[in-house]
Amino acid sequence: MDFKKELNLRTEEINNILDEYMPKTDGKQKTVIDAMNYSISAGGKRLRPMLMNETFKLFGGEGDVIKPFMAAIEMIHTYSLVHDDLPAMDNDEYRRGKKTTHVVYGEAMGILAGDALLNYAFETASSAFDILFEKKVAKALKILSEKSGIYGMIGGQVVDIESEGKKVGTDTLEFVHANKTGALIVASMQIGAVLAGADRDDENKIVSIASDIGFAFQIQDDILDITSTTETLGKPVGSDEKNEKITYVSLNGIDKAKKEVATLSERALNKLSSFENKNEFLAELIKMLIKREK
Amino acid sequence: MDFKKELNLRTEEINNILDEYMPKTDGKQKTVIDAMNYSISAGGKRLRPMLMNETFKLFGGEGDVIKPFMAAIEMIHTYSLVHDDLPAMDNDEYRRGKKTTHVVYGEAMGILAGDALLNYAFETASSAFDILFEKKVAKALKILSEKSGIYGMIGGQVVDIESEGKKVGTDTLEFVHANKTGALIVASMQIGAVLAGADRDDENKIVSIASDIGFAFQIQDDILDITSTTETLGKPVGSDEKNEKITYVSLNGIDKAKKEVATLSERALNKLSSFENKNEFLAELIKMLIKREK
Repeated sequence: MDFKKELNLRTEEINNILDEYMPKTDGKQKTVIDAMNYSISAGGKRLRPMLMNETFKLFGGEGDVIKPFMAAIEMIHTYSLVHDDLPAMDNDEYRRGKKTTHVVYGEAMGILAGDALLNYAFETASSAFDILFEKKVAKALKILSEKSGIYGMIGGQVVDIESEGKKVGTDTLEFVHANKTGALIVASMQIGAVLAGADRDDENKIVSIASDIGFAFQIQDDILDITSTTETLGKPVGSDEKNEKITYVSLNGIDKAKKEVATLSERALNKLSSFENKNEFLAELIKMLIKREK
Repeated sequence: MDFKKELNLRTEEINNILDEYMPKTDGKQKTVIDAMNYSISAGGKRLRPMLMNETFKLFGGEGDVIKPFMAAIEMIHTYSLVHDDLPAMDNDEYRRGKKTTHVVYGEAMGILAGDALLNYAFETASSAFDILFEKKVAKALKILSEKSGIYGMIGGQVVDIESEGKKVGTDTLEFVHANKTGALIVASMQIGAVLAGADRDDENKIVSIASDIGFAFQIQDDILDITSTTETLGKPVGSDEKNEKITYVSLNGIDKAKKEVATLSERALNKLSSFENKNEFLAELIKMLIKREK
């Protein structure tokens, strides 16, 4: 398998799905739609929809019902970045090498564009019922909303913000990681499994794999914030130190952090290989995520 | 019918439903849950859930499926106020006589509490499938998400903000009214009708009644912003003038505005009385909304 080629094909496929589901810039409210599209098209790895679709395929999922959920999870991820970048939050002016949404459109529109993306995510996911009216779609919707809310991503963000400048311990750090980054990665893979009709055992195994990936992904992020350059990352390095954020690296040192990333990814790959069904690309994707340099 | 007594009973019933559905202040993320509950419990008329439930009853709706939607629409309404009050938006420090959420919890938590309420609204509405797995619930979810998003409330907010300090015409003003305030009122009554199993004709009639009510309600709001006092309203009067907002009153004068409110409400009541089913309380509620002084 030419992983690089397959990765590009899939990224393009996801961008086409996003094009299909994102609203067209038109009408009196066109500024907010423009801001939504600006933030979505700023790029990114499309990791969440990719993990979702690959898990869907792993369990033999077929049909279009996965598409609105792929679009929705990327919208939720993107809104969280738009709001995170606001002056009252992390106050970041650049992301992925481009000016952040509130810098281009103003703060009020940054808030509204984030709200609009979150709302549109649920509008999009709800449209999956037009494709398939089955209970597993309702279950997927429930996972999406729970994992992005106070018992998921938002919960993690809140504790992350409250922890700034404080000496928090491993316990709090793990809560932030599991929720702020982990919850959407778990949601992605879990929704893929559920919509493909995986049984409860397989679903639980996928949740555990996704938790490992999410944690490894976040630690790698913290490592890159120290070892990478602004050019490579497309955003300022050293921002954790600037914001006085406790990270796995600041608590445990860079060597232990690198070892933990290796352990987590190996465990995830082992569990993945225990399934009867195989998805070689998914395994390669997980390896890539861990070794990534941006 | 003792309207005042019935109104209090229904308001209490809605507050109990909100208590049931709102998350409990607990866990590591308790600050955001506390902020969500603060903004929800700041009061308000509970107009949207009330209109929803009364329309549900008008068409003979039974069972609990309406409850999560009643809670959800109040959460959406409340999040929109929390974000509207932010410094980057209307910058209001008081609402309903209480300090606004961002003043009490800080700006970052104000943004997150709003996000959390919006997200929790969909989490709550999605839980209606556990009560009843039928297509009309999917339809209600679609109405809720559309009317609160860019083709509804958020669309209206965007144009409202972009219009500040500009000489906009009737056309733009009607767009803002129909969407910023109107869309959620339409959604409330439409969802009530849909979940009760009303046919398409009745649903369309309800949408038209709700549009009239929404428009009348907004004009009355603009009138009160000029004629009322800060004590009665619980928020500063004259804020439209301060924010250089064009309103129906500033475009047409207060006499024409009062006449328009009367015309719209009469039309709404006439349409309501044309249904075979009757809901005396709903008719009285509509009258009260128009004559209200806060």
